[in-house]
Amino acid sequence: REIVLLPGDGIGQEIMESAKSVLNTVAANFGHQFIFHEHAIGGTAIDQYQTPLPETTIKACKGSDAVLLGAVGGEKWDSLPGDQRPEKGLLGIRKALDLFANLRPIKGFAPLLHASPLKQEIIEGSDILIIRELTGGLYFGEPKSRVEDGNAAVDTLYYSRQEMERIIDKSFQTAQKRRKKLTSVDKANVLESSRLWREIVEEKSKSYPDVEVNHLLVDAAAMKLITQPNQFDVIVTENLFGDILSDEASVLTGSLGMLPSASIRTDGVGLYEPVHGSAPDIAGLGIANPLGMILSTALMLRQSFDMQEEADEIEKAVQETLDQGYHTPDLSIKDGIKVGTKEMTDTVIGNLS
Amino acid sequence: REIVLLPGDGIGQEIMESAKSVLNTVAANFGHQFIFHEHAIGGTAIDQYQTPLPETTIKACKGSDAVLLGAVGGEKWDSLPGDQRPEKGLLGIRKALDLFANLRPIKGFAPLLHASPLKQEIIEGSDILIIRELTGGLYFGEPKSRVEDGNAAVDTLYYSRQEMERIIDKSFQTAQKRRKKLTSVDKANVLESSRLWREIVEEKSKSYPDVEVNHLLVDAAAMKLITQPNQFDVIVTENLFGDILSDEASVLTGSLGMLPSASIRTDGVGLYEPVHGSAPDIAGLGIANPLGMILSTALMLRQSFDMQEEADEIEKAVQETLDQGYHTPDLSIKDGIKVGTKEMTDTVIGNLS
Ligand SMILES: CC(C)[C@H](C(=O)O)[C@@H](O)C(=O)O
Ligand SMILES: CC(C)[C@H](C(=O)O)[C@@H](O)C(=O)O
Repeated sequence: REIVLLPGDGIGQEIMESAKSVLNTVAANFGHQFIFHEHAIGGTAIDQYQTPLPETTIKACKGSDAVLLGAVGGEKWDSLPGDQRPEKGLLGIRKALDLFANLRPIKGFAPLLHASPLKQEIIEGSDILIIRELTGGLYFGEPKSRVEDGNAAVDTLYYSRQEMERIIDKSFQTAQKRRKKLTSVDKANVLESSRLWREIVEEKSKSYPDVEVNHLLVDAAAMKLITQPNQFDVIVTENLFGDILSDEASVLTGSLGMLPSASIRTDGVGLYEPVHGSAPDIAGLGIANPLGMILSTALMLRQSFDMQEEADEIEKAVQETLDQGYHTPDLSIKDGIKVGTKEMTDTVIGNLS
Repeated sequence: REIVLLPGDGIGQEIMESAKSVLNTVAANFGHQFIFHEHAIGGTAIDQYQTPLPETTIKACKGSDAVLLGAVGGEKWDSLPGDQRPEKGLLGIRKALDLFANLRPIKGFAPLLHASPLKQEIIEGSDILIIRELTGGLYFGEPKSRVEDGNAAVDTLYYSRQEMERIIDKSFQTAQKRRKKLTSVDKANVLESSRLWREIVEEKSKSYPDVEVNHLLVDAAAMKLITQPNQFDVIVTENLFGDILSDEASVLTGSLGMLPSASIRTDGVGLYEPVHGSAPDIAGLGIANPLGMILSTALMLRQSFDMQEEADEIEKAVQETLDQGYHTPDLSIKDGIKVGTKEMTDTVIGNLS
């Protein structure tokens, strides 16, 4: 299997080392071969190649079976014009690989749940998967420009039926493998695109009679994520709503540093990255939390390579490591043992049977 | 002063009675004259006049000094086509009166804070005012339609510089009267309209040197509202982001039934309504919580009539009523006294000095 590694900026490099070590151990244990190809993206690519997404990176990703991404961005590049900023690399690679579905699982770990901003009884038992459409909507619709001599600006929310259908199908299929509850989020009382979205969800639901569907307006969803997070199973929504809701949801368990994410294509090829950012303030100090990155490799094995057992192993090893009390400085565990990136990674690897 | 009353649907009628009683008492105490004109809106208007916003209602509102709205909507009208639904009445009246600024104060009451989904130490001390632009953006931009033979849909996010300037000015001025901290929320890394927005905020900030401004991306704002709500003072943002964030914020204190809102125009005329909905399930039972509506009248006195003392009186009377333990069934107070709409209103009135 060919895996492209894009460490990116800030702590990206350090946590990517952790991912590699974990994958090498899994490869040895299960007799797989993972071939890694490292390429530049984000600010690091800007510094080296004057673009956040070099052609060689795109080409390598296109030829690979999966991509692992560390993180992109940092103050250093914040003053560059819009199309030369690190995030453009991320948006560009999503588009280039046609990664249309962003999967964001939100599930807490018992030893860490005390850090949730929510009361224990509210967050407990929550296990949400947010599926965000990633290639359409306001992010890419044209026109997107200044108009009227610069005295107005316009962005365009455009979705084709086909773009909606594939993400909605994906969501029904994903719900079938989970608790069979799908919440479709839109703003159908205001947006025409949401009304088409809702029609398609209704149409599609006939093909998945075992999945219970309900519709929620995006404003109501933003409320319910806080008041009743454990009422959700799978949530599906368009690009921008998904951006807002998945970030909102990411803080609910109190340990954002643990969350992985996947951005996948119809054929299973995908890009996997932790939800947290590049944390330039702690880059190079050896204290970054590698668990979000490590759990992203598990998600990769599960989604792109259909290696369920291998993915389970990694997730169990992480769970065990926390149960043993090991944590990086961003986390806190009662009577726990504070460790750095390297020791954390080694402990997880030690827990891989 | 001429005040138009739009009770609307569900519990709207009952809580509007409470508003009237409170205002009559204030009028008597302070020697004011409030003249009320009642008109139809929402589902009730659909039933009577086949439109959620009759011309006579618009005309009356245009001729008034302020408008009080109960609530609109209900399952009964949910299957009507988009442009004949109760919410259209609300969107229509905002447009007709040019109510460009929606003010949503979020502040808890000590006896009720225990009901917050957030941990006490997180929500305590929070006092946020969200200012949402109300007449532009994705809600109204054209084209908004099906395209490509119905195989795609498009909505348009359009803002003129002038629309942005007036809401941003309003926000700086409002922040000056509070703790002088303004958070501007946008999605400038993706949207052209957000980039124009951010430029204007920067420009305007020169005219308000006493206000500390910072920019936050909408996804980050959705997170920070949960993790550090007490770090905010005034938040300003465009229409749809404001819709999502203000609803998200409305559940933080745990008593949404208490929250008022204002939608105002440059000359001070405004529409005031509680944040909660029409609650058709409890309509007519005499148990609806009138406090959100009553606090909306206080907001009206403050914003549209510049009656600060009178507004203070009402807010203090509500505070006192809760301190005495009185609450409607939607709220809970330790060792409290559960009462209905009428008794709650009478108690508040009794507490008006
Ligand atoms: C960096 C930014 C463009 C991006 C997005 O909005 O999609 C980010 O917020 C994310 O969610 O991955
Ligand atoms: C009813 C709906 C159109 C409205 C909106 O989105 O503006 C509502 O959610 C609100 O916030 O007042």
